[in-house]
Amino acid sequence: MSTREVSRRKLLSSLGLAAGASLLSGCADALQGAPRRKKRDSPESEEAYSSIPEGDAASAWRYVKLDSADVAAEAYGLVPQGGCMYALFASIVTAMGRVQGEPYLSFPVHMMKYGQGGVGLWGSLCGAVNGGAAVIGLFAPEKLQREQLIAELFSWYESTELPTYRPKGTKHSSPVPKSVSHSVLCHVSVGRWCAASGEDVGSPAMNERCRRLTADVAAKTVELLNANLHEPCKFAGLSPEVKSCLSCHNDELHDTLGKMQCNSCHPKLSAKHPAIKPVPPKSSSDRGTPKLDIR
Amino acid sequence: MSTREVSRRKLLSSLGLAAGASLLSGCADALQGAPRRKKRDSPESEEAYSSIPEGDAASAWRYVKLDSADVAAEAYGLVPQGGCMYALFASIVTAMGRVQGEPYLSFPVHMMKYGQGGVGLWGSLCGAVNGGAAVIGLFAPEKLQREQLIAELFSWYESTELPTYRPKGTKHSSPVPKSVSHSVLCHVSVGRWCAASGEDVGSPAMNERCRRLTADVAAKTVELLNANLHEPCKFAGLSPEVKSCLSCHNDELHDTLGKMQCNSCHPKLSAKHPAIKPVPPKSSSDRGTPKLDIR
Repeated sequence: MSTREVSRRKLLSSLGLAAGASLLSGCADALQGAPRRKKRDSPESEEAYSSIPEGDAASAWRYVKLDSADVAAEAYGLVPQGGCMYALFASIVTAMGRVQGEPYLSFPVHMMKYGQGGVGLWGSLCGAVNGGAAVIGLFAPEKLQREQLIAELFSWYESTELPTYRPKGTKHSSPVPKSVSHSVLCHVSVGRWCAASGEDVGSPAMNERCRRLTADVAAKTVELLNANLHEPCKFAGLSPEVKSCLSCHNDELHDTLGKMQCNSCHPKLSAKHPAIKPVPPKSSSDRGTPKLDIR
Repeated sequence: MSTREVSRRKLLSSLGLAAGASLLSGCADALQGAPRRKKRDSPESEEAYSSIPEGDAASAWRYVKLDSADVAAEAYGLVPQGGCMYALFASIVTAMGRVQGEPYLSFPVHMMKYGQGGVGLWGSLCGAVNGGAAVIGLFAPEKLQREQLIAELFSWYESTELPTYRPKGTKHSSPVPKSVSHSVLCHVSVGRWCAASGEDVGSPAMNERCRRLTADVAAKTVELLNANLHEPCKFAGLSPEVKSCLSCHNDELHDTLGKMQCNSCHPKLSAKHPAIKPVPPKSSSDRGTPKLDIR
């Protein structure tokens, strides 16, 4: 991984955000062509910057199929050691280390503790999906495939009643209330669950919810990798609502970057917008005080 | 990094989210004690789960001081190869590899491409701060210190006019409009900059803005690590507004997880709330169409 200078054109040809080929990343959509974006710049006198040769590094991290139930149990067990992102990432890398040995055994998994509670308890991106995306980044070096897998994981997380995982043989095996997050953000996901369940943030019940949710996301990540890294694409793609919003805001207005569920933060739109399916009301078990007052 | 069973009590004593000792993470606040949180559960019949011994792994990744200007230039140069998170993380790990050799030279930096555009173009957490937090996670294994450093980086990002970095000797050396993001979320940060600058999402100007911003965040991350990993704590802490919100919502109501700038998404609060400083209006160069209609 030493640095060296490479040709300016080779570097610039891989310029990041301008590509966006899978912004409407239903599988077919993403494969059939790039969206109607402006072309990026092609500077004529760009200097050569350092680059990192990575063909060998990426190929050393090969995915082999794992048992999603085993990984989920491992992730559930690891949450107390370092939080959601750590548990998810470590469960998969450790399982891979049992099968393949190095380089998995030497990965510094301790670093992934940073993602806990939406990164350092900041409430931003849920650590479980941050960890899932990091695993995808490790095993899917090709940009389009990586973005499709992340889109699939994130869309599922936003729209699925979680948690569903139930540990066996512990006092925690009783059911835990479920909720749909409508967001990949920890602050919103936890807030909606607490509103639906009547439980406090930081309560034992909330910690158990996040622990089981981490197991669920670990299992889903493995299922996605098992099904798609060695076999034909089987993606469901983004929700119709998000596709509808992006069809204007991305393809025509060029004023939005993102694929998050739009109406979770923007439920009230001006009259010029087409009709959009609203986020469902909170559970009947809501304690009556609004936990999320985004309008 | 093989897995083994450890005592149930040792594992549970490190249970993640319940700790939250630095939720109001001014330096002194965080060091002087835990917030008024409910105690986590202490199950009596918890089974032993697998754990990962990590003392040796964490100690193998020791931070040595770097030159923040050199790292910023390296990060700027690497953005075209893999996006914001990749460029930030690789710039620091590569620089460390030049000084210390292994294990830095073998780190699979390609994985960090997943964070581009708020993770797979999803618009969630800005890849630059995600990468900065990942670097902090690598070098600051102790929970409180890690969370303080992340809080410092994220608060700075939310409140600082960016980008400030200017590459030398390229056609890109002309100034780029600046904006204050008021958010660590890519969707919001990019949206505010495009509204302030009048530029499109995905435009060459926006790509150049994100590229320079990545250099800025890389420099800030190095400055924070240089100043705090080997010397006494020098943290500024969260903004007064966020502390004010959390003093009720975290310490008393227990209904909020997070430290993100609250009024970026919640500018209109009900009458029972105390006065709070609103987010400044958009720049006069705003094109007139609302880019962010969160209310």
